[in-house]
Amino acid sequence: MNINYPNGQHHSPEAIDPSLNNSIEFGKRGMSLEEELNSSNQYYLSRGLGVIHKKPTPIQIVKVEYPKRSAARITEAYFRQASTTDYNGVYKGHYLDFDAKETTNLTSFPLKNFHTHQITHMKQCIDAGGICFTIIKFVKLDRIFLLQAINLFDYWDKKDNGGRQSIPLSYFEEQGIEIKYKLAPLIPYLSAVDMIM
Amino acid sequence: MNINYPNGQHHSPEAIDPSLNNSIEFGKRGMSLEEELNSSNQYYLSRGLGVIHKKPTPIQIVKVEYPKRSAARITEAYFRQASTTDYNGVYKGHYLDFDAKETTNLTSFPLKNFHTHQITHMKQCIDAGGICFTIIKFVKLDRIFLLQAINLFDYWDKKDNGGRQSIPLSYFEEQGIEIKYKLAPLIPYLSAVDMIM
Repeated sequence: MNINYPNGQHHSPEAIDPSLNNSIEFGKRGMSLEEELNSSNQYYLSRGLGVIHKKPTPIQIVKVEYPKRSAARITEAYFRQASTTDYNGVYKGHYLDFDAKETTNLTSFPLKNFHTHQITHMKQCIDAGGICFTIIKFVKLDRIFLLQAINLFDYWDKKDNGGRQSIPLSYFEEQGIEIKYKLAPLIPYLSAVDMIM
Repeated sequence: MNINYPNGQHHSPEAIDPSLNNSIEFGKRGMSLEEELNSSNQYYLSRGLGVIHKKPTPIQIVKVEYPKRSAARITEAYFRQASTTDYNGVYKGHYLDFDAKETTNLTSFPLKNFHTHQITHMKQCIDAGGICFTIIKFVKLDRIFLLQAINLFDYWDKKDNGGRQSIPLSYFEEQGIEIKYKLAPLIPYLSAVDMIM
């Protein structure tokens, strides 16, 4: 049995109901952090707990063909750089805004994974009263942390003034909130958000 | 002199500083409602008043070429239907979510301009504590209204049960908030949002 979500995605029942599956690893087998978060967001949405979506990738469309009796086909387009973070939405009346990044590093997260415009956007959102953070996955350690944007800024703002080019894992352990995989939702990050609200 | 905004768009000074221009019509000459709102959002962003962006159009990418020494080129892609509204962001700590629609009708706004998934999304956002509305422009009258989502739902939920297929202009005049063009921002819709918060 598959459960059909409003957007037409299919989810295996193991991702929804823990009782259907003995292995806590099953639901996320082979998924990227983005897929894991999308699945978690679907769970939160379906339970009425929060409305958080990943924004579509911005594309510059150059040429479109309109074949008879079929859908418009884009035949030339290019990727554009996003001017915001990837995820935003609403939770308990609060505006949430965040980016999610993976690293294969074992002991630190390289700051070059962020772009200036993403940092600028998060600072603007905070000024307007939003809650901003980043979700970092150390892929080889299979560990996920939520780090508040203000902690990220601490490192970011120093990196061009002789500071470190990466955030050490120990800093995530001390200042971040580790998120342990669950079955439903896979990445229960809104529980971590509760702790920073 | 042009003013460069962070995203590289150029704005004529007339759109920014009323003293540079005698005609209130100049700034919006030939602009679509989307362009007018993007310009207004740039203004709000540049003044630190709110962070509201239009989401990119969702595209299903099928084929990408990676030519040597130049940018990846998408050679086959299709438009996908969005699962959310077009605009969201944060203002005074509140989550805002809205869609903007134009009509050339003179006396009513046809409900067929909305899709079920947009209505569903707005209901989900309201349940999570967000502020949802729609911005409707009667193009031939050059009049713009903000209508709260709950008022839109009133009509939407009745349309398949013998109700009207459109919202009369008089309803916008009574229940909506008319937004008069200004120079900066062009569409001062956050002032209307202040009235529904």
